[in-house]
Amino acid sequence: MIVEVVAVGTELLLGQIVNGNAAHIGARLAEEGHDAHFQTVVGDNVGRIAAAIDVAVRRSDAVILTGGLGPTQDDLTREGVAEATGRDLVFDQDVADRLRDWFTARGRTMADANLRQAWRPRGSVWLPNPKGTAPGLFVEEGAVRIFALPGVPAEMSLMLDEQVLPRLREGTVGVIRSRLLRTWGLSESKVAELLGDLYGPSNPSLAFLASGGEIKVRITAKAQDDTAAEALIAPVEAEVRRRLGPVVFGADADTVEVVLLRLLSERAWTLGTAESMTGGMVAARITTVAGASKVFRGAAVTYATDLKRRLLGVPQAVLDAGVVSAPTATAMADGAAERLGVDVAVSITGSAGPDPQERPAGTVFVGVHVPGETRARELHLPGDRERVRTFATTAALHLARRAILGEWW
Amino acid sequence: MIVEVVAVGTELLLGQIVNGNAAHIGARLAEEGHDAHFQTVVGDNVGRIAAAIDVAVRRSDAVILTGGLGPTQDDLTREGVAEATGRDLVFDQDVADRLRDWFTARGRTMADANLRQAWRPRGSVWLPNPKGTAPGLFVEEGAVRIFALPGVPAEMSLMLDEQVLPRLREGTVGVIRSRLLRTWGLSESKVAELLGDLYGPSNPSLAFLASGGEIKVRITAKAQDDTAAEALIAPVEAEVRRRLGPVVFGADADTVEVVLLRLLSERAWTLGTAESMTGGMVAARITTVAGASKVFRGAAVTYATDLKRRLLGVPQAVLDAGVVSAPTATAMADGAAERLGVDVAVSITGSAGPDPQERPAGTVFVGVHVPGETRARELHLPGDRERVRTFATTAALHLARRAILGEWW
Repeated sequence: MIVEVVAVGTELLLGQIVNGNAAHIGARLAEEGHDAHFQTVVGDNVGRIAAAIDVAVRRSDAVILTGGLGPTQDDLTREGVAEATGRDLVFDQDVADRLRDWFTARGRTMADANLRQAWRPRGSVWLPNPKGTAPGLFVEEGAVRIFALPGVPAEMSLMLDEQVLPRLREGTVGVIRSRLLRTWGLSESKVAELLGDLYGPSNPSLAFLASGGEIKVRITAKAQDDTAAEALIAPVEAEVRRRLGPVVFGADADTVEVVLLRLLSERAWTLGTAESMTGGMVAARITTVAGASKVFRGAAVTYATDLKRRLLGVPQAVLDAGVVSAPTATAMADGAAERLGVDVAVSITGSAGPDPQERPAGTVFVGVHVPGETRARELHLPGDRERVRTFATTAALHLARRAILGEWW
Repeated sequence: MIVEVVAVGTELLLGQIVNGNAAHIGARLAEEGHDAHFQTVVGDNVGRIAAAIDVAVRRSDAVILTGGLGPTQDDLTREGVAEATGRDLVFDQDVADRLRDWFTARGRTMADANLRQAWRPRGSVWLPNPKGTAPGLFVEEGAVRIFALPGVPAEMSLMLDEQVLPRLREGTVGVIRSRLLRTWGLSESKVAELLGDLYGPSNPSLAFLASGGEIKVRITAKAQDDTAAEALIAPVEAEVRRRLGPVVFGADADTVEVVLLRLLSERAWTLGTAESMTGGMVAARITTVAGASKVFRGAAVTYATDLKRRLLGVPQAVLDAGVVSAPTATAMADGAAERLGVDVAVSITGSAGPDPQERPAGTVFVGVHVPGETRARELHLPGDRERVRTFATTAALHLARRAILGEWW
């Protein structure tokens, strides 16, 4: 089924938020085997919301709107759906009563603005919202199904799974399945060159994606069922892995932090970090993984130079010789191993910019301590402050992973 | 001028990355006074790229494409522009030579795939790319200007500023200016209710935006020049500030971390954090601000319970009585103040989920130490692990800000 996501909100057009909802819905649709050809963003304007629905309906089997169902006067998706489908809006006293109950149950008084949420296009069906006040809508316009979901991510994703995807499954034939191979250490054009002859509009198809310092290779197959799709993917995956070798570090949901935690868990080793330039980003990335506490013990974020000595025991002479240096990175990793009581410690010291700190912006030293050995590696990362910090965080996670495997640089 | 952003890439449709480029371009266009009515995302398919350009050209004065200019076979924006504008592709030996020189200058051999980047639609103009190998393109199709930029954010944003925006300024009349008022502590519907009568399709217009635990109020004015726009915004801004009072904590680029660092800087106070559940996210947020090192000294990320004692000196009896508790949060903040040698310390202990840790998921205690006083506050945050961690991080920054101002809870 061809499905188009239409995200509603002037704040998206103005770039005040990024369109995470479209990404989430896109990922879920792909998992379910639906095709996506286009996504649209439209501002808070009834006529243009209706126009976007109109375009989407003509090139899709289903349209999923998100946003614009809230209580404020710039929430206009209800009106847009009504205009695009030539319906008027009707008021549901039942829904109004339920809204009032929702607030009462939480000990709050309902703002009158919330009554806007009790209007729906005539002939549409309410989609319950277990997590919030704005119910969703479902309308059939000829053969095309139109869904409207709230813009709050937690409400949207639950309603997508419970209300929308089950309705889209009816009458669908075949699946799309992807394998995402994650690599670190080669440039995108080098990966493309090594895999060039595997590429094409064939089945399965290959695509490349650079993000945050990693290159991902996606193999996508269309087939009647999971088994047939997997049979198409398996030989291509084997060939990609053969050509790229150990730069492939994981597949699908196995991010570097997941792989790193698994390697540590297998060895019953614990992990800690010592961070200067990244200010805790490595620790924050690791702890995104539920259950990280089994392996990860903590971090010393030593932004101030004297804390590198006080918290991590880096000798003053080492700091005097250069805070952004291999010896400092090594001493930070060793200090973290001891002070945090961990088997593996990864450290970062560097100059993120915009102003250079001792060394040119982008100069980074990553230290890794594993039982019996500690080494540091120098990196030179291009880009602005956030890019340098993000790429350094990714590199630190990878260098720790490789050191644990004995793949020293 | 009405400008539409068309982002090219199947990885966007599949939700493997979020569309940060569209957000960035949208923000820059708004700053320059251009209108945006729609954004589109299209996959790596020549016919559909051409179709997206076709739709965009009919409803805009200019179209900015981003992505699909790289060296791989799924980079098809060149072909899409050619098809949409009825042109053939021509090969530029000059560009091919320059590409080869670019690689040679960096001591690398060019992969042949890069030669794809030397093709352009006949009659189009190259846009130089100082940061990478893929040059951009500029085509005039009737009265509509079409720009194609690479998808790599650093390359795209530089070329947008240097190549695209100056061309869009020619012949433009008037500006759009926005004031973004940032609030924390009221729900979106409460903010909407307090400001309801100010709202409308008037000039200036008001919009509301909930994100990461904060509500933003955007006031947007269209006028001949900056002075006239500011004169429209000022009285509405004053009225919004009067009605919302101290929940407005900043305007425009003044995020809570910027405001917090400024308050500390004014008092010559230093800052540190002690984090359990957030795993360093508060420290990482603070250090996104360039120059944070003048105020921020460091953090103790004490994920393991015994590190709360070892690194922060939290008494064992306090931990035994409850790790997720007000006394632990208070002791963590006091310990951080002493061990990190800072004037202000903020601490977080809580249960992020999915599995409850001692207390139900979403239970969070934030502690704040300022000179002479330490308090903790209990929060109950809905949502999944990432939402709880993000909202707790935002709350910690705000509670620290308010404690410094003497606005205790």
